[in-house]
Amino acid sequence: MSDFLSDFRTMSTFGATAGGGVERQAASVADGENRAWFTRWLADNGFEVKVDSIGNIFGLVELYPGAPYVVVGSHLDSQPLAGRFDGAYGVLAGAHAVRSLVRAVASGDASVRFNLAVVDWFNEEGSRFKPSMMGSAVFTGTLALGRALETSDPGGTTVAEALDAIDGRGDFGSLDVAAYLEIHVEQGRELEDTGTTIGLVASTWTAHKLEVVVTGEQSHTGAARMVDRRDALYGAAELIVAVRRLIDGWEPEQLHTAVSEMYLDPNSPVAIAREVRMLVDIRSPERSVLDAAVARLREQMTEIEQRAKVEIEVRGLVEWSSGPFLEEGIQLAAAEAERLGYTYRRSATVAGHDATNMKEFVPTIMLFVPSVDGISHNEREFTSDDDLLAGLEVLTGVLTRVASGVLNATDAEPVALNSSRDLG
Amino acid sequence: MSDFLSDFRTMSTFGATAGGGVERQAASVADGENRAWFTRWLADNGFEVKVDSIGNIFGLVELYPGAPYVVVGSHLDSQPLAGRFDGAYGVLAGAHAVRSLVRAVASGDASVRFNLAVVDWFNEEGSRFKPSMMGSAVFTGTLALGRALETSDPGGTTVAEALDAIDGRGDFGSLDVAAYLEIHVEQGRELEDTGTTIGLVASTWTAHKLEVVVTGEQSHTGAARMVDRRDALYGAAELIVAVRRLIDGWEPEQLHTAVSEMYLDPNSPVAIAREVRMLVDIRSPERSVLDAAVARLREQMTEIEQRAKVEIEVRGLVEWSSGPFLEEGIQLAAAEAERLGYTYRRSATVAGHDATNMKEFVPTIMLFVPSVDGISHNEREFTSDDDLLAGLEVLTGVLTRVASGVLNATDAEPVALNSSRDLG
Repeated sequence: MSDFLSDFRTMSTFGATAGGGVERQAASVADGENRAWFTRWLADNGFEVKVDSIGNIFGLVELYPGAPYVVVGSHLDSQPLAGRFDGAYGVLAGAHAVRSLVRAVASGDASVRFNLAVVDWFNEEGSRFKPSMMGSAVFTGTLALGRALETSDPGGTTVAEALDAIDGRGDFGSLDVAAYLEIHVEQGRELEDTGTTIGLVASTWTAHKLEVVVTGEQSHTGAARMVDRRDALYGAAELIVAVRRLIDGWEPEQLHTAVSEMYLDPNSPVAIAREVRMLVDIRSPERSVLDAAVARLREQMTEIEQRAKVEIEVRGLVEWSSGPFLEEGIQLAAAEAERLGYTYRRSATVAGHDATNMKEFVPTIMLFVPSVDGISHNEREFTSDDDLLAGLEVLTGVLTRVASGVLNATDAEPVALNSSRDLG
Repeated sequence: MSDFLSDFRTMSTFGATAGGGVERQAASVADGENRAWFTRWLADNGFEVKVDSIGNIFGLVELYPGAPYVVVGSHLDSQPLAGRFDGAYGVLAGAHAVRSLVRAVASGDASVRFNLAVVDWFNEEGSRFKPSMMGSAVFTGTLALGRALETSDPGGTTVAEALDAIDGRGDFGSLDVAAYLEIHVEQGRELEDTGTTIGLVASTWTAHKLEVVVTGEQSHTGAARMVDRRDALYGAAELIVAVRRLIDGWEPEQLHTAVSEMYLDPNSPVAIAREVRMLVDIRSPERSVLDAAVARLREQMTEIEQRAKVEIEVRGLVEWSSGPFLEEGIQLAAAEAERLGYTYRRSATVAGHDATNMKEFVPTIMLFVPSVDGISHNEREFTSDDDLLAGLEVLTGVLTRVASGVLNATDAEPVALNSSRDLG
């Protein structure tokens, strides 16, 4: 078995679940074990390990003191009862790609003009601590460090406390980044359906996440007259149905909608809910479709307020914008896939990734490998060994090309990024 | 201020909430404080205090050694953010009624042929530990002691552990019960709407509580194709809407339906729910209406299973049957209200009460006093001082009459009840 597959199997034992997946939510015990194993792997393989103030782990290889870094990575944390590929594959593939290139440089088989780094971004998943993609958001300065550290999970534990519990915070400072690369499982079916091995991510769907609070009035579940009830859970249920039915107005794959997180008070078998809080997730490849869908949903909220005698308030809105990836990077990756004899095609990512944050600041290339049946955030998530190795091979090739300086975009001033900024 | 109102104000300080209500869920710290205060009150007023194995507190006054007891009471526990009247009024009114009668007997103004007791039934509300009406169910032998003690709250604490934490378990044995009386706030608007002071509870609505599990499949909230999703929360939302709309087929006040408790897994902002568990509550004064409503709901469950690609399973069913209260008791209470100059009318109770359990075993009389706007299980629950005192006066009169032996039904063999039976 290749070194890579052997390492990947070892990694998959941390937080392994009975259903063949893993559960390694951000800064959990299992995430801590996996991070510790990965940190040892980096040290054993000649990387200098640095951890920053939001728990991102960097494995650095400095070849030219003072030169900027080409960074490759993804995230080690997972959803609850998740697959073993999402994120973890990209981090380990990044580490192996950097190691291969360093060895090639040492043996004279490759030459580079940048330093190299692999990164494990903290809390990409956002299942335990919102928002998702937290580590890369702090690193790029779009989320304040202080706000991220004080975010708490449903049990009241803060990010700072959870990171400290796994010895997960450091004081690593700024890094000059010339380019960022990431490989990830597709979490969709397009590659599989088209028999393609490598996806070249060309664009991101736009996503809106609306924090919605439905307010009713607590009363007796059995005794209160139906006409008097102001049932927040009934109002929330009408809204969830409306969110799902939003898609009826558009072509398939033009709109994805869901509610998957919800809290109700008092959540008693005998008292009508006075408040329901939930997150509404709406995504589209087209900004205009998303805006129209959100506008339609807001109309329906008004109707539901009247029907269920509740108030519906949209308190917070997180969004990330659609936008193209660097065309020059897509072409470079296409050339590498072609050279190595793999089929490839342009992909769009519906899911957010750390690369979505990074591409706003530095030249970024993102690759996909197929997911069987498109299953993701599920223990049954699966990518074949052949596809994992093909992805690693293409990633290594792309890294080699970018580090050699062929990407014109890397000639621009490198961007100094760090996780220490507090935006207040 | 009357002794009773003064005591009631003191009692309302335990677990008092900012909104003017109380929160004293079963075996919570606040419930423990209130129970301790009530226990001291009983001892200070000449009652012998006994606690049984499920945490029911009895205040006994033995006038004729060996004679059966007329028991009067209700429950001190509350819903979360609840009103201060529900249950607590009935326990304190029962204690004051017994004390008044004992004093009247001592002064020669009344004569009785039964012993007297007041009871605080443990966990009537069922918000923390299911099922509701737990203490009276164990006492009447319809719920096994062992099963009740091992029931756990959502945090995993068992009834046994929670009771021990407030020193709330005893070893009181059997009690021969001749009759049971309970007074309670109406939790409805009929008395208020008709300008009536005293409700004579004549019947109970039938209630079905269905434990429903909706099973889908966990997947990526954003990335999974809509056509592939098996979203348990969407299925649950369709079901909640269907439960609410069940009432459309019947006349008002023929059917009450609700869902107020729900748990979802994994409850992540980025992973479609794989499972939702919820309790569906359906009640009607007519058994035939209830059965027809449940049958219609089961048909709709099948439709929702197909529409949402989920499985819906009804795992448990708790029910209590409608049934009349003792007609002779209703007539006796009507005569007392008439004699004391209060307006009265026959009532039906939609909510379950400990009297609902007791009436299956011993002659039982239940009285209501008005609830302003019918508000209940809410901090704004309110009953006026005048109505509280009127209720206490009628309750004392009814207790005096029943204890004197005018209720023919009490001539039957008294029923020996206790909380020590384990039905296995």
